[in-house]
Amino acid sequence: MEKLLFASDYMEGAHPDILKKLVETNMEKSAGYGSDDFSGSARNRIRKACGAPDADVFFLVGGTQTNAVMIDALLRPYQGVIAAKSGHISLHEAGAIEFGGHKVLVADHDNGKLSACETERILLEYRQDENRDHMVMPGMVYISQPTEYGTLYSLAELKEISKVCRENNIPLYLDGARLAYALACPENDVTLRDIASLCDAFYIGGTKCGALFGEAVVIPEHDRIPHLFTIIKQHGALLAKGRIAGIQFDTLFTDGLYEKIGKTAIEAADRIRKALADRGYSLAFYAPTNQIFIKISKDRAAELSEKLELAFWENTDDGHTILRIATSWATKPEDVDRLIECL
Amino acid sequence: MEKLLFASDYMEGAHPDILKKLVETNMEKSAGYGSDDFSGSARNRIRKACGAPDADVFFLVGGTQTNAVMIDALLRPYQGVIAAKSGHISLHEAGAIEFGGHKVLVADHDNGKLSACETERILLEYRQDENRDHMVMPGMVYISQPTEYGTLYSLAELKEISKVCRENNIPLYLDGARLAYALACPENDVTLRDIASLCDAFYIGGTKCGALFGEAVVIPEHDRIPHLFTIIKQHGALLAKGRIAGIQFDTLFTDGLYEKIGKTAIEAADRIRKALADRGYSLAFYAPTNQIFIKISKDRAAELSEKLELAFWENTDDGHTILRIATSWATKPEDVDRLIECL
Amino acid sequence: MEKLLFASDYMEGAHPDILKKLVETNMEKSAGYGSDDFSGSARNRIRKACGAPDADVFFLVGGTQTNAVMIDALLRPYQGVIAAKSGHISLHEAGAIEFGGHKVLVADHDNGKLSACETERILLEYRQDENRDHMVMPGMVYISQPTEYGTLYSLAELKEISKVCRENNIPLYLDGARLAYALACPENDVTLRDIASLCDAFYIGGTKCGALFGEAVVIPEHDRIPHLFTIIKQHGALLAKGRIAGIQFDTLFTDGLYEKIGKTAIEAADRIRKALADRGYSLAFYAPTNQIFIKISKDRAAELSEKLELAFWENTDDGHTILRIATSWATKPEDVDRLIECL
Amino acid sequence: MEKLLFASDYMEGAHPDILKKLVETNMEKSAGYGSDDFSGSARNRIRKACGAPDADVFFLVGGTQTNAVMIDALLRPYQGVIAAKSGHISLHEAGAIEFGGHKVLVADHDNGKLSACETERILLEYRQDENRDHMVMPGMVYISQPTEYGTLYSLAELKEISKVCRENNIPLYLDGARLAYALACPENDVTLRDIASLCDAFYIGGTKCGALFGEAVVIPEHDRIPHLFTIIKQHGALLAKGRIAGIQFDTLFTDGLYEKIGKTAIEAADRIRKALADRGYSLAFYAPTNQIFIKISKDRAAELSEKLELAFWENTDDGHTILRIATSWATKPEDVDRLIECL
Repeated sequence: MEKLLFASDYMEGAHPDILKKLVETNMEKSAGYGSDDFSGSARNRIRKACGAPDADVFFLVGGTQTNAVMIDALLRPYQGVIAAKSGHISLHEAGAIEFGGHKVLVADHDNGKLSACETERILLEYRQDENRDHMVMPGMVYISQPTEYGTLYSLAELKEISKVCRENNIPLYLDGARLAYALACPENDVTLRDIASLCDAFYIGGTKCGALFGEAVVIPEHDRIPHLFTIIKQHGALLAKGRIAGIQFDTLFTDGLYEKIGKTAIEAADRIRKALADRGYSLAFYAPTNQIFIKISKDRAAELSEKLELAFWENTDDGHTILRIATSWATKPEDVDRLIECL
Repeated sequence: MEKLLFASDYMEGAHPDILKKLVETNMEKSAGYGSDDFSGSARNRIRKACGAPDADVFFLVGGTQTNAVMIDALLRPYQGVIAAKSGHISLHEAGAIEFGGHKVLVADHDNGKLSACETERILLEYRQDENRDHMVMPGMVYISQPTEYGTLYSLAELKEISKVCRENNIPLYLDGARLAYALACPENDVTLRDIASLCDAFYIGGTKCGALFGEAVVIPEHDRIPHLFTIIKQHGALLAKGRIAGIQFDTLFTDGLYEKIGKTAIEAADRIRKALADRGYSLAFYAPTNQIFIKISKDRAAELSEKLELAFWENTDDGHTILRIATSWATKPEDVDRLIECL
Repeated sequence: MEKLLFASDYMEGAHPDILKKLVETNMEKSAGYGSDDFSGSARNRIRKACGAPDADVFFLVGGTQTNAVMIDALLRPYQGVIAAKSGHISLHEAGAIEFGGHKVLVADHDNGKLSACETERILLEYRQDENRDHMVMPGMVYISQPTEYGTLYSLAELKEISKVCRENNIPLYLDGARLAYALACPENDVTLRDIASLCDAFYIGGTKCGALFGEAVVIPEHDRIPHLFTIIKQHGALLAKGRIAGIQFDTLFTDGLYEKIGKTAIEAADRIRKALADRGYSLAFYAPTNQIFIKISKDRAAELSEKLELAFWENTDDGHTILRIATSWATKPEDVDRLIECL
Repeated sequence: MEKLLFASDYMEGAHPDILKKLVETNMEKSAGYGSDDFSGSARNRIRKACGAPDADVFFLVGGTQTNAVMIDALLRPYQGVIAAKSGHISLHEAGAIEFGGHKVLVADHDNGKLSACETERILLEYRQDENRDHMVMPGMVYISQPTEYGTLYSLAELKEISKVCRENNIPLYLDGARLAYALACPENDVTLRDIASLCDAFYIGGTKCGALFGEAVVIPEHDRIPHLFTIIKQHGALLAKGRIAGIQFDTLFTDGLYEKIGKTAIEAADRIRKALADRGYSLAFYAPTNQIFIKISKDRAAELSEKLELAFWENTDDGHTILRIATSWATKPEDVDRLIECL
């Protein structure tokens, strides 16, 4: 019997509407590099969904790339980026941030979340350090929604972080690689409009949320980052056929698809969470979105791996293994049933 | 009436077979980052087509990105890359090569082509310069087939350059962004197998040759570049859903599609070249592939632009404008007819 | 009354022998960039003192520069450097390591010292992480002798770290900015020869140890780092008048001066440590070399600052301040007397 | 008989006044990193000499370093620097500019000089290129006085270049590695005050003009480059004992020493130029400062090298060799006599 695959949320292709649109428009000719009408329409729909009529919107290809480009674009060379120690850019970007010359200034976190208080502490510590001119200046704050642990910032928390950033005159950047799964989560109270009003730049993830690939960068204030087009090109992140990303985001932002697409994933994850609780599994950390982190013995992990493919997360100091179960917009109820049987 | 678009070879979507395959396989689950079966199959087909059974094959997204990653991967930090002054990396990569810390060592060219002789001259000049330790060391050679001017290296020429590189122990890298148009050109005598045997690394262009996006890097000698996977990730060039590129190249290398796909473009370009000659147009440089560079007065350029959208190439010192007409795998005969009428 | 200055060990000029030699040789002509006879002689004396007859020796200007150059030279772009969280490169290099594209992989430490065990843990964790190809590869180990806290590695400890590095095939690099103060310390059992046999590269600090400026990089195995001269130049670290550094190190390595020059500083520090203990001061961490870290209330710090200029180290979470008292090769006994009176 | 050395202008130590001051002040204690009183005094004297009372002044160590730091500090990452093809940064900085991520945009020159006209042409070409967003943006202009060929910009020429820069809103940066030799040259009509009023940043060379080492960066407008201290540190270019540079420039700017120190060199060079003319030597290019470039056959070069050590400049395409004769502030008349005998 084939293994059940629940290792990540980027295991399938794209939402059928996207493929349909790609097929329909395939032989139309369009200009390159994002100046096509599909991209124009997508940009407008995103501006509208974000309540940010003047926003600059760019379509990039993947998450690491988007983080590296935007951090480079927002920082001056002598500045670093504050991020939770658990943040994606702290651990799993293969040095892409440092490749651009920037230090990741790691901060303590609570279940993957950076607090306004910890952010303020780091900024204050820098300001009060008499040797600060010999140190990397904190130049921006990086967060993700949901976080690397699948947890969510509440609107109140996001407002507080944003306030600290604005008082300190540094930009707040939000990585929305899995934003659709936050938006579809009943516990969530943060909308796209909230993000656009509280962040200086963010991206709406496509790759993990129904697209073949693609991330939509939104900068609510027009021309906040001059020459970003060239910066994107310099980082090798400019799509020649920009339309391919444009068509995808145009589809994802038609009839509110993006805000609904994560619903299936959350429902599936909720069913799995319930089954895990019933069977007495320990969670490494609780999260309400589409990722579930279970902490089990290495023997149990080996057993599970005969039937299931989950993602390795990390080995703990007490000899256990943390595995990740991820659901997606494409997860089928019958696969969830089969997964639950295996637990 | 709508304008006729002949500005570039990346104005349409993808070859229909590619879309068909994407649709068919859409809901299959697969592992990420290129470890899926589609990518595995594509790699094997490419190895076979190149006669390079041990080759490492990686799928990247676009040309600038691929050039930047590969040049970084092939050079040590204190080395530069020799390229024709007209080469794409010399002019139109927005500083992506320098972003990686490398100087482009520009060489004289003949209609866009770098000669073995000029390559040897540069290497010798460096070796004989008593101040060479204060200079950027030439560490590799960059060429493209076809060149930036649409011209072709003959097999004899390629062999000579390769010989100089091997004698000097530096890698030869070939940018094949438009390789399909070389392979389909009657004048061409260089096969994929030749390239694989004469170059240390090269890429087979997808974006401009029938794919939605994607470039296939081929390194004939296995593990010639250790940790290339991580280098790709560090440059933000790793696709999460690697399958999307894998499926496209698997299709392009099924039944020799890649080697045939440029035929339409060459035939269309030949018809246009003939019409231009008949009407007395001047070519900026002669090239036998899918790009045609006409040199006309600014007034004439303005007239043409009422009906046609061509690509601006450059203004010449004598007050003329060079425009590029590009055909593609998707160019329709009736559009060529209409174009010829406008000339 | 003027303040007593004990803020750092680089407050005076140079050892008088150095100035004497600079004056004597001033109008002799010599070749540039380190190819002069003074530099040649200095290299030979250093090779002899280190028992490393084949060593490559280069003279750079300052510590940050030397660390940045050597880390860049020893790592491949996708690698990072393991260093104690308290290490100089982790905190006080203003992002110089990241400017070269490398992540500092911070490790736990014991009073400023990295252990073989912690080093091995980090290397093992990387190797066992299934996502390691998405992470920065540990590519070298950075330590300093004395450490940032003024503590010393014992020979046994250094041997253990070296063993781990060699078993894992990664270089061990030692920052000897204050090496003279280690060598002159009675508790020390690590010689220059030990360092040369256990490390792959290290530098012998001049700036803080009696020179006007300058650090001597030693690479025991000849040509371990090809083209290092050019790498140094590329980093802007090549002195035109290399002789100025050469003359200084030639003097410091004549008649064992370097190994004796720190004695005054250690004796002065010992007297101060005793006086502090007698008066009931708390030390932030105990160290036997020329730096003393006292932990006092902010009020007391303000009082002391009326008469003394010490170095601010950091504010602690419990509201105290850590100040550093540093002695040097040039510290006068009468200044120590006066300092002790102020305590 | 020992060879006569005329290879460069950095073959001796320092002006005796500098050594005297270093000796006198040696045991005074001072703060680090340029905050000492010597550096403070030097900065004031330089401000006065430049008629720039608000100028920021920083002391760096060498020329490559200063160029790399300042170009990085003045440019945004996606910008490049316009420089004459013959400029030092175009050829002999071992990739230091590219290491910082910037392309050198080479310009045609006239005897080493960039013209306002050529500068304007490049800026206009960029602005008019429809593909400019895919290209490196010209972000500053680099010139040197004297130029790499020893020639001089006239005040009129400098004003014109400055005008073009200001009209185009990009900074003009002047490399003054050998500035003392321009200031002492009878043909020169450009003062320090002119440079300070026409350039946005420049450096006054010490290494080649009487100091042991050191270059004084002057930025006439205060805080034109925020956080430059940290940028300097990040590049490894910050001297711990800043006083050593401070003392040197304080001396060089006492009683107008810097403006007189090059006189000996110019007089010596004039005598040599006359002797060369008398003996029928060809100059590769005529220059009135302290460098003389002779073009001779390889055989003659070999003969000369038996008695003289000159600098290799380059091999010409017609089989000749260009050698450089350099005089300095320390050149002795009797050595000039002997040199002339050898010609």
